[in-house]
Amino acid sequence: MKLHDENYRGFASDNYAGAHPEVIAAIAEANGGHQIAYGEDVYTARLQDVMKQHFGDQAETFPVFNGTGANVTALTSILPRWGAVVATSTAHIHTDEGGAPERISGLKLLTIPTPDGKLTPDLIDREAWGWGDEHRPQPLAVSITQTTELGTLYSVDEVRAIAEHAHSLGMKLHMDGARVSNAAAALGVPLREFTTDAGVDILSFGGTKNGVLYGEAIVALNPQASDGLIYLRKLNMQLASKMRFVSAQLIALLTDNLWLDSARHANAMAAHLRHSLETEIAAGAISGLSFSQETQANAVFAVLPNEAADRIRERFRFYDWDRAGGEVRWMTAFDTTEDDVDAFVAAITEELSA
Amino acid sequence: MKLHDENYRGFASDNYAGAHPEVIAAIAEANGGHQIAYGEDVYTARLQDVMKQHFGDQAETFPVFNGTGANVTALTSILPRWGAVVATSTAHIHTDEGGAPERISGLKLLTIPTPDGKLTPDLIDREAWGWGDEHRPQPLAVSITQTTELGTLYSVDEVRAIAEHAHSLGMKLHMDGARVSNAAAALGVPLREFTTDAGVDILSFGGTKNGVLYGEAIVALNPQASDGLIYLRKLNMQLASKMRFVSAQLIALLTDNLWLDSARHANAMAAHLRHSLETEIAAGAISGLSFSQETQANAVFAVLPNEAADRIRERFRFYDWDRAGGEVRWMTAFDTTEDDVDAFVAAITEELSA
Amino acid sequence: MKLHDENYRGFASDNYAGAHPEVIAAIAEANGGHQIAYGEDVYTARLQDVMKQHFGDQAETFPVFNGTGANVTALTSILPRWGAVVATSTAHIHTDEGGAPERISGLKLLTIPTPDGKLTPDLIDREAWGWGDEHRPQPLAVSITQTTELGTLYSVDEVRAIAEHAHSLGMKLHMDGARVSNAAAALGVPLREFTTDAGVDILSFGGTKNGVLYGEAIVALNPQASDGLIYLRKLNMQLASKMRFVSAQLIALLTDNLWLDSARHANAMAAHLRHSLETEIAAGAISGLSFSQETQANAVFAVLPNEAADRIRERFRFYDWDRAGGEVRWMTAFDTTEDDVDAFVAAITEELSA
Amino acid sequence: MKLHDENYRGFASDNYAGAHPEVIAAIAEANGGHQIAYGEDVYTARLQDVMKQHFGDQAETFPVFNGTGANVTALTSILPRWGAVVATSTAHIHTDEGGAPERISGLKLLTIPTPDGKLTPDLIDREAWGWGDEHRPQPLAVSITQTTELGTLYSVDEVRAIAEHAHSLGMKLHMDGARVSNAAAALGVPLREFTTDAGVDILSFGGTKNGVLYGEAIVALNPQASDGLIYLRKLNMQLASKMRFVSAQLIALLTDNLWLDSARHANAMAAHLRHSLETEIAAGAISGLSFSQETQANAVFAVLPNEAADRIRERFRFYDWDRAGGEVRWMTAFDTTEDDVDAFVAAITEELSA
Repeated sequence: MKLHDENYRGFASDNYAGAHPEVIAAIAEANGGHQIAYGEDVYTARLQDVMKQHFGDQAETFPVFNGTGANVTALTSILPRWGAVVATSTAHIHTDEGGAPERISGLKLLTIPTPDGKLTPDLIDREAWGWGDEHRPQPLAVSITQTTELGTLYSVDEVRAIAEHAHSLGMKLHMDGARVSNAAAALGVPLREFTTDAGVDILSFGGTKNGVLYGEAIVALNPQASDGLIYLRKLNMQLASKMRFVSAQLIALLTDNLWLDSARHANAMAAHLRHSLETEIAAGAISGLSFSQETQANAVFAVLPNEAADRIRERFRFYDWDRAGGEVRWMTAFDTTEDDVDAFVAAITEELSA
Repeated sequence: MKLHDENYRGFASDNYAGAHPEVIAAIAEANGGHQIAYGEDVYTARLQDVMKQHFGDQAETFPVFNGTGANVTALTSILPRWGAVVATSTAHIHTDEGGAPERISGLKLLTIPTPDGKLTPDLIDREAWGWGDEHRPQPLAVSITQTTELGTLYSVDEVRAIAEHAHSLGMKLHMDGARVSNAAAALGVPLREFTTDAGVDILSFGGTKNGVLYGEAIVALNPQASDGLIYLRKLNMQLASKMRFVSAQLIALLTDNLWLDSARHANAMAAHLRHSLETEIAAGAISGLSFSQETQANAVFAVLPNEAADRIRERFRFYDWDRAGGEVRWMTAFDTTEDDVDAFVAAITEELSA
Repeated sequence: MKLHDENYRGFASDNYAGAHPEVIAAIAEANGGHQIAYGEDVYTARLQDVMKQHFGDQAETFPVFNGTGANVTALTSILPRWGAVVATSTAHIHTDEGGAPERISGLKLLTIPTPDGKLTPDLIDREAWGWGDEHRPQPLAVSITQTTELGTLYSVDEVRAIAEHAHSLGMKLHMDGARVSNAAAALGVPLREFTTDAGVDILSFGGTKNGVLYGEAIVALNPQASDGLIYLRKLNMQLASKMRFVSAQLIALLTDNLWLDSARHANAMAAHLRHSLETEIAAGAISGLSFSQETQANAVFAVLPNEAADRIRERFRFYDWDRAGGEVRWMTAFDTTEDDVDAFVAAITEELSA
Repeated sequence: MKLHDENYRGFASDNYAGAHPEVIAAIAEANGGHQIAYGEDVYTARLQDVMKQHFGDQAETFPVFNGTGANVTALTSILPRWGAVVATSTAHIHTDEGGAPERISGLKLLTIPTPDGKLTPDLIDREAWGWGDEHRPQPLAVSITQTTELGTLYSVDEVRAIAEHAHSLGMKLHMDGARVSNAAAALGVPLREFTTDAGVDILSFGGTKNGVLYGEAIVALNPQASDGLIYLRKLNMQLASKMRFVSAQLIALLTDNLWLDSARHANAMAAHLRHSLETEIAAGAISGLSFSQETQANAVFAVLPNEAADRIRERFRFYDWDRAGGEVRWMTAFDTTEDDVDAFVAAITEELSA
């Protein structure tokens, strides 16, 4: 029973998109017959192997339901009860998880303002101190998001520098990889080069924003750094009984480059959007539009008058990022087409014609 | 990529089964285009209406990922931080959720042994006392499971008596309905007759064990009894971004009687299993087999020698329930066939031939 | 400003009593001048030494405010987030801490009914199983209370057998020693003989019920078994700023046998009460009174008609234990006098005269 | 047994001081005989009346052990599980409670940098938004500290403006009054004028820093704003069994102006310290010393070279506040003498002589 317009696409979020047909086909293939519940099925076993190909033989994979579940469970597994997490003040775990890290695991977040959503060793040092003083939440982990919530990207060297700094301080490194595929596409390197090989201890691997129905995976890149993931996943209500369907989707994504092609496409659409608009601006066709962040993956952060934004939004849905500052966020997805972008650019141009 | 034998079916659990083809078709129908994430999509809106048809116009529905998520979130929404839950000692929330009610919400469970997995007003009174005494966790909710973890069934009158008793004590009533469809099928009454109309305040409606990929729903049958479900679902990491796919599955299940036909079939297969075995026993063809619970829905609890059970298990997977007592559990599912049952009976008969 | 009758003493609880004059004198001695807050003071340093004399050189002591704080913090320090505690169903942590173990640390309690408030290796085995199964809370600690909530006593051998059994299962052993001094007095052995030397890993050492104003101590008897106590004490809001006053009280108690003399006296008063009543019963002067537990320390559990209990209670306060069964609890304290007991016996005799 | 030098006093913290002799006398008076435990004693009843005299007839008082316990319990009582607290980034609940608000109650803190430790309606608005959006922790309370952690003071009008603003947004107002007596002394008004009458909903009343051994009180100034304090105090392990001794201390403090005289004296000593140093600076006797905050109560925040600070610290203990910036904190207490201050000024002058 189709209730919606399958031709409508906006620029609100990559999770407004649906799923790849290949993913739905994989679900159908995994259907039928009985499989052991809770992860002892053959698809989950296969997923382990697939993930090891991407992240190294030491990697251990724990499929979960969603990104908040992945982040909170991963962070909990690398921290004692008295641990705190150093993160940016724009980190999803701080701004968009409803306080789940605090509520579910009692984790204190020590947040640091940044211009571009990226931590550095120097920025980390603002909150990385006070070990042994029981009055201060103990900063024992760093969490970075790749690509960031502001659409920016850590280079391989930047991740490595953070990992080395964190480890030198006795801290562990978590990566929120809700858009880790977009990062790999943008960096043009294998996944493991900026994760396992750069020193990341544990990864929230995102599937949903890259085209599965539901399903993320915690990947213990350094299994010595975490503890009790099997129990924490259950306790955190992230254990799927029919796990074969989560695993089958992630297998479909991670085999034959569906993950990479999808991410590349989304990134390309954001680049196309940014380039098209900059061209219009340069040509004098648009006025009152500027950009507040670099477009390094599948997001464009723009500044324009609120009223113009509201009128454009009537045709293409997107979110305000900072209403007071006139900043908005435009996301592209695996299914965004060049025509979608062109139509959006046309709408923007119409509203902001000089 | 099919990795498994789609013709193998055992008797371990109804969540070993896959999904209905109609459910997968519904997912495919809901795919394509952009839909607002996190529940503002048209499928979730439609699901609200579908649920109201089953549970009354006052009912409010909150799709979630899994049963533990539904139970813990539902119970949390009806209890203050100092609340405790009266439940049987065989309740899933006590035995099989890894301690999630305690860990996630700090909820104390006050558990009561029962012969058949069913509470009664008298049994409830064993733990329903001590209000106002801050040393005692405050018993402010009752949780019952329908059908129970022991395969038994509350009658409409039994639910009503519990609801009235709970309410008279200022307590609220939660129903863990992981198999609520099996209960409706067994009782032969509409869902609302033993839920909303019997006084249940909040329901964990189970989809997974009745043939969806994933997806349950918290149904606030009496919305005045609960608070903050929208926030708790997020905090408890049960908020699906692409919620349209959860809702589409539940719509497929709850329209055109797929839910009821599936549950009836599963129940019928359990009855067939029980009847076939009793016939063999009566005929003297089987010895050493007895039954420890009534078969009122889709479970058969049997007692047989461990060694026999282990040999049968090599061909048909199932779980020990109480190894010391030789008790096992045999579950049927929506996809169990009469041939499956007959083959299973034959295997049991072979092992236990008198 | 004295607002109360300092000559009234009842049999309700040993925490109805006040404090030893020596304890108040010790507070006055510790007063004056500035001392480093939060435990770096000289009194807390001295307490460490005093405790080592009682419990061995390896013992590490963490003063806290109250018994619930000691128990919850101690148990948390020996368990991962997925740990559960095996305890009796009459354990204080289960019945009288308002659900704090669950709320504060998410700890699941796996409780076992007992006739006398005492666990045994066999009883422990009823709940000590299921390791590695994430659906089951992981039983990783045993908690026993010495003397028990029912006034009974573990022998040295009984504690040792439990410790050996727990350790053989990979479990740790906690002792709730709210009345550990009464146990030492009853057993007639040094404290360490039935704690450190018997294999107890961590102890909640009780001061309040034995005559201080406030103040208990977590004693890590086996420091390898616990982790993060310094942080957990702070997080659990049990860190006293002016800790010198807690430590000074415990020093006063534990030096020059004040702790032991007080406990012996309380025990002797309970024995006197029990013996006096048994004498009256034997003489036929009392009817309708019996005893439901042995009197091994400073509690008498008796059974008598509710109405008689209520009339006696008008003169001497005490608690019902099981109203339905007519069971009451009579506690003696360090300040209970022989005259108090005799007057109480007279009152009971008057009410129950044959 | 006196182990310490009762003539040593430094400038590290007002909780390095001991207790008033009157407080110890009050404990001795409250001793003897039996009193009902857990708050049903006559001293706690009297304390209720004493507090009503200070805060109004509607005020309900809950004695607790320490400041962190008071703050976390008070905040929890005014917030649902999804509530967040707006506070300064220098708030004690954020910097010095080890993460207890997050760990114990899952409360998210939304923190705001300030120059002087004081919130304003405008500053609050930076984080007071997003109600109804489940992705954002819901800002439902404001917490201010009076006097602040930076030694500054809210005027009556400033508190009132914050209360009105918070209430207009549907938020509740908590005051951390660890030094509320110093505030009353500095403002020269009754306690209720800047608490109850200014619109504060709930207060953590501080006793420890003003001269009791231990003991704070949660005062529900507006009992309609909080819920379940009796249960939360127990669950948060803040319920004293021998509560008479907490209450007797607070009664001693709050009767006959001991609270006010003590606070006035501490404030006067800080003013004397500040004035003396400014005089030396003005006279050219000291160089390299400046002040980073106003001295409005009993704290002086100063900036001087680290090496000089370290040498002065050998004689008078105090804390660095911001080592990198050379900022230190000097606190005075109820027992600081003019001679102490003069000797400290002499030491500083000696080190910083121009």
